[in-house]
Amino acid sequence: MIEEKFHTIDGGVCAAKGFKASGVYCGIKKWGAPDWEESLTSGAKNDIAMIFADNVCNAVGVYTSNKVKGAPVTVTKNNLERSGGKARAVIVNSGNANTCNPDGIEKAVKMCELTAKALNIPTEQVIIGSTGVIGQIFPIEPIENAIPELTEKLSYTGNAEAATAIMTTDTVKKEYAVKFVIDGRECHLGGMAKGSGMICPNMATTLNFITTDCAVSAECLQKALSDVVKVTYNCLSVDGDQSTNDTCVIMSSGLAGNNEISAENENFGVFRDALYQVMANLTRMLAKDGEGATKLLTCEVSAAPDIDTAITIAKSVINSPLVKCAMFGADANWGRVLCAMGYANAEFDVDKADVSFASKAGKILMCKGGSGVGFSEEEAKKILSEDEIEILIDLNMGNVSAAAWGCDLTYDYVKINGDYRS
Amino acid sequence: MIEEKFHTIDGGVCAAKGFKASGVYCGIKKWGAPDWEESLTSGAKNDIAMIFADNVCNAVGVYTSNKVKGAPVTVTKNNLERSGGKARAVIVNSGNANTCNPDGIEKAVKMCELTAKALNIPTEQVIIGSTGVIGQIFPIEPIENAIPELTEKLSYTGNAEAATAIMTTDTVKKEYAVKFVIDGRECHLGGMAKGSGMICPNMATTLNFITTDCAVSAECLQKALSDVVKVTYNCLSVDGDQSTNDTCVIMSSGLAGNNEISAENENFGVFRDALYQVMANLTRMLAKDGEGATKLLTCEVSAAPDIDTAITIAKSVINSPLVKCAMFGADANWGRVLCAMGYANAEFDVDKADVSFASKAGKILMCKGGSGVGFSEEEAKKILSEDEIEILIDLNMGNVSAAAWGCDLTYDYVKINGDYRS
Repeated sequence: MIEEKFHTIDGGVCAAKGFKASGVYCGIKKWGAPDWEESLTSGAKNDIAMIFADNVCNAVGVYTSNKVKGAPVTVTKNNLERSGGKARAVIVNSGNANTCNPDGIEKAVKMCELTAKALNIPTEQVIIGSTGVIGQIFPIEPIENAIPELTEKLSYTGNAEAATAIMTTDTVKKEYAVKFVIDGRECHLGGMAKGSGMICPNMATTLNFITTDCAVSAECLQKALSDVVKVTYNCLSVDGDQSTNDTCVIMSSGLAGNNEISAENENFGVFRDALYQVMANLTRMLAKDGEGATKLLTCEVSAAPDIDTAITIAKSVINSPLVKCAMFGADANWGRVLCAMGYANAEFDVDKADVSFASKAGKILMCKGGSGVGFSEEEAKKILSEDEIEILIDLNMGNVSAAAWGCDLTYDYVKINGDYRS
Repeated sequence: MIEEKFHTIDGGVCAAKGFKASGVYCGIKKWGAPDWEESLTSGAKNDIAMIFADNVCNAVGVYTSNKVKGAPVTVTKNNLERSGGKARAVIVNSGNANTCNPDGIEKAVKMCELTAKALNIPTEQVIIGSTGVIGQIFPIEPIENAIPELTEKLSYTGNAEAATAIMTTDTVKKEYAVKFVIDGRECHLGGMAKGSGMICPNMATTLNFITTDCAVSAECLQKALSDVVKVTYNCLSVDGDQSTNDTCVIMSSGLAGNNEISAENENFGVFRDALYQVMANLTRMLAKDGEGATKLLTCEVSAAPDIDTAITIAKSVINSPLVKCAMFGADANWGRVLCAMGYANAEFDVDKADVSFASKAGKILMCKGGSGVGFSEEEAKKILSEDEIEILIDLNMGNVSAAAWGCDLTYDYVKINGDYRS
């Protein structure tokens, strides 16, 4: 589904020239407990990560639109404003979202200061992220304790340690990178992401850090990021942009040696396509690893009159709990798809819409022109029993397509979220 | 929570003078199966109901706003338009929604004609409803077969038989009625409702039929119904108005003998309050019997600047899967409440908001002015272990309050919806 016109490579956030990363365990969740110190040598999963660029990078971000914003979101926005869109480092933790805390901003600023001091850079060149429980006092002590080790461990192959550190209920780390050529120079672009509770990303924190050595102006970086976020990240279930801490940041070191992309020309198109490939793949990974998920769901809306109509309908279907439950049960209950289309805030002609289900086991038409058609339950069951399902909607109205990604709703989602804090 | 200024009585849709009802089993889901005929004598749950008024009633409705509309919705609207807001009968089935069928309208019209003929009334005075699976051909034969028996069984005490007939995955029938006095005359108002999958009512069919003997003009009936639906039915989880078949109809026989209420005077206020009490209680019953639910959740937003702000925030919280899961697990994860408030499409000041949890076991403050306060986990657990939970939000901004109702999200919800059709 995602065009492979770029070469996929390893390396995540270290794939691009000039970026080191590290990750360690500092015991954020254990802080204050009698066994905190003991936990430091227990081999627990990393909970804090650092990214450090060899030179000052152009850096831009997109953030949550939630009125309740995590302190790290406010501080990152403020830092990039003060630095004029320049950054050299990222510091990010899991285990505590540092949100809805009376001293949250103060602690987030302190975390940036500690990082800046260790790396000998200005505080405003630090990007910060936090994910975890909301409303629990954020302990700065374990962070302070960890920064020397994090700094020491920084390496050009530290991407996996960093990607592991930002996982919460994620079951796999998410990294993706590509290489491509601009001005005859080989460029690299890679990222890491985390997302828990992807079944409802509007309430779960998603963090996304992307690095590139392709030289791109801050303005073009922002344009490319905004364009791509709209059709990838923000098409993950409902509204990836609505959690309290959602952050997607991209840093460009420029070390590939191409002429800086500073206009929306052909090179900009290549760069944006590379960014799309990385972010679309990360989005698929986030969807597939949704809390309790057993299936990746993709809803593709084609022949729409415009992109917003396609996206709105695709998201509405992907976010329907009843559709998600039906997919979990491999039940070809296509009426729920039509229902979710119908309450989407978009204009379309129900009597023209076709709906099919597809997977690697085949493709089956369920509904033609808004009415059901006969189908083989057995064949449908076979198709829906795969672990990657496509819900294909043809609006028969125009020539625009878009996709949204999500997962099924399962017993394990309820289990995980019935007692997340413990 | 609901003011008891009216006297609660038995009788459901037969509580008001001049209304008979009946319900029987006709085997809609079994039609075409070899054991259909056998099933008729098997004592299966009723699946078709009739209400018949002694005289022509003023009748108005509110309907789904989903672009995909069930044929019964289209036909009911059309009938009431043709009759000038007059009706004498309701015919309603469970087991098949008659939605997204190529011959749906034709079958719905036929169902009205059969009813009208049996009752010797004009077809346009018949209100029709259907609930069940979407997109399966609607069998008119078992309906035609059942209408003589339905007609014969009509009685002034048939309300429970009718209320049972409209249940799908409902575990209890929902009826409520009150009596009140207007112009020195005793008036009665009662209703029956059905709702499955109430955890996401925007995708589940909810049907609501209300009868009264209080004389009210069609215009005032519509005004009262619209006012009350906004703060009851439409505050049930997200958007009760968005399923394909949602219908809420009220019929007034006028047999109480009061002067017809035809202006928004004091008597109108009393009538609207009576309607509120019936519909708010039915709403609570629908929420509490949500698919797989173990708890009724009520979110009350107080000190809001206006009613829309209060409703929008309350609905956002009630509809949050993460809040619902936390309530299932009796986990005092109030950060999820604040997060759901934050992505609601409403303006408020996060730094002024207080959040508490309450039940009959007590009340506990979780968050003051947007930040967490210390609380006893043990006490919170005790409060949240009850089966009726209140989430209390004080915006500290104005003097308007509103509530939304919902239920927890449980393993059984997933189980029921993972294989609904079978």
